[in-house]
Amino acid sequence: MNFREFDWIASLSSATAEGLILGIGDDGALFEGRGPWCISTDSLQEGVHFLRDDDPFSVGWKTVAVGVSDMAAMGCRPRFFLLNLHMTAAYAKSLPFFRDGLQSALSRYKVSLIGGDTIFAETGPFSVAGVILGTPFAGKPVLRSGARPGDLICVTGPGLGGSFPRRHLNFEPRLEWGELLCKRSMPSAMMDISDGLLQDLGHILDRSGVSAELDLWKVPVSKDLSGPPEERLRRALGDGEDFELLFTLSEADFLRIPKDIPVSAIGRIREGKGEIMARESADCPFKPFPRLGYSHGGGCREIGARTTRSRPLLPLLSGL
Amino acid sequence: MNFREFDWIASLSSATAEGLILGIGDDGALFEGRGPWCISTDSLQEGVHFLRDDDPFSVGWKTVAVGVSDMAAMGCRPRFFLLNLHMTAAYAKSLPFFRDGLQSALSRYKVSLIGGDTIFAETGPFSVAGVILGTPFAGKPVLRSGARPGDLICVTGPGLGGSFPRRHLNFEPRLEWGELLCKRSMPSAMMDISDGLLQDLGHILDRSGVSAELDLWKVPVSKDLSGPPEERLRRALGDGEDFELLFTLSEADFLRIPKDIPVSAIGRIREGKGEIMARESADCPFKPFPRLGYSHGGGCREIGARTTRSRPLLPLLSGL
Repeated sequence: MNFREFDWIASLSSATAEGLILGIGDDGALFEGRGPWCISTDSLQEGVHFLRDDDPFSVGWKTVAVGVSDMAAMGCRPRFFLLNLHMTAAYAKSLPFFRDGLQSALSRYKVSLIGGDTIFAETGPFSVAGVILGTPFAGKPVLRSGARPGDLICVTGPGLGGSFPRRHLNFEPRLEWGELLCKRSMPSAMMDISDGLLQDLGHILDRSGVSAELDLWKVPVSKDLSGPPEERLRRALGDGEDFELLFTLSEADFLRIPKDIPVSAIGRIREGKGEIMARESADCPFKPFPRLGYSHGGGCREIGARTTRSRPLLPLLSGL
Repeated sequence: MNFREFDWIASLSSATAEGLILGIGDDGALFEGRGPWCISTDSLQEGVHFLRDDDPFSVGWKTVAVGVSDMAAMGCRPRFFLLNLHMTAAYAKSLPFFRDGLQSALSRYKVSLIGGDTIFAETGPFSVAGVILGTPFAGKPVLRSGARPGDLICVTGPGLGGSFPRRHLNFEPRLEWGELLCKRSMPSAMMDISDGLLQDLGHILDRSGVSAELDLWKVPVSKDLSGPPEERLRRALGDGEDFELLFTLSEADFLRIPKDIPVSAIGRIREGKGEIMARESADCPFKPFPRLGYSHGGGCREIGARTTRSRPLLPLLSGL
């Protein structure tokens, strides 16, 4: 670890936090406490996840927020953060704003900065790699692998889709909702939506060894989306970086969800091998539905994906 | 976390390891076990820490080895590793060799890959950010802050200096020596030498609130160095990336160090406020010695530093 170059980083660091033994200033940070511990790391890079003229405050915010969202999705409270900063000359003017965004998110979600590393290069893209550590809200974490036949499939928030070009940088991770869900009505499986609803649902199905039936008219569609209903639904199903929580739980647990959390039950888990079936209305039969979204293979993850996402996903709805 | 693009990473990941609950494949990895836990993260970037035509196997090796060295320096056994890979088109041909080096170090030091993230960009430098977690060899970690007046100042290895241009990529972190030191004769303070002996000793002095007296003729000088004796000593004192262990301990503990570990006692901790005093021979008086090495300020960390390091450090020896 090497943080001496950045006095401002030391000023953001927390000398005391529950479980923290030693923060910045040694070869490693030290922490303790009852586990299990959850750890996740996410990289963001100029030109891939954000553009040179994107608001640097938002980039700093997102550096922390993506990790907070991962923790919420695991049913965990985020506690400690480490920051790898790959700094460039061109980003120097933006750095104070990046720092403010970072600090804002650390404060908002009560996360302590305990370490990291810095690189300087004259040229090249600015990039960061954040590391976040947390512990379960309610004794145990929530995995993708716990969905069981009969469980309802639910998603948080007012509507999916249209996160690009701006909302994906300023999103609010669903930490409070995740905590309430875990404390009042433990989900059987959960994740955050980063690759798009269908693709991420596919991850839950694969890890849980089950299939899904979707009621398409129940999928909440973002007000930010315009165009004909089919196109808006397509984007609600396929767009990435919504950072809403996608989870499954029994009907009994569903009834225990506090009413002030906006939750849509959009379908049900069935026995099967990862198939997604869908219907357009309660009168229609369920039909096989190609799992789509976009492929990570060979392209950029986010901005590359954005192009793919906004392209009409014809095969997606052709099964209807 | 997002590792789906890289099947080879999944193939390197460990499904089972002591304390590991869940590895790659969810929003976070899960681990448990008796703490305290030590965490450190280090970034390496093409053009800063290594060059385009440096052996990619060695770059992969170093990605893990710098973290292992941090853990050894904290008196900890490394256990889990996470890898952030900022991939570029130009590095694609090198990636299989990078992977082999990474895997080689993970196996050699019994570290389990449990998560990470990947970015693709067409252009820009290849870079990585590694995250390592460990637990103490001997119940408690060793900090930089524990040096006490009267302690001996020691350094491991056959000789310091001349790590650039090649040895800094292929170095062997002193994990076994660190473990033996902690189990047989607990150091009072320890760190690994990354910025150069004098500068790193300064960190121990600052954190411990003490001063040091050095016997310069006892400083082990690398056989790789050429030139007049003064120049070789200068580089042994100032060159970075030796990755030897620098530690302090009582005379009684010093006598318990196993004889098969090459250790040089090069001075003694005194009361004071971070001053370094030195003498050229046992007949000479101790004289104030400017703490040097190189500055991190405004330049590149490693390769930029290398230029600074190989420049004669005149003020360094002018005090003698």
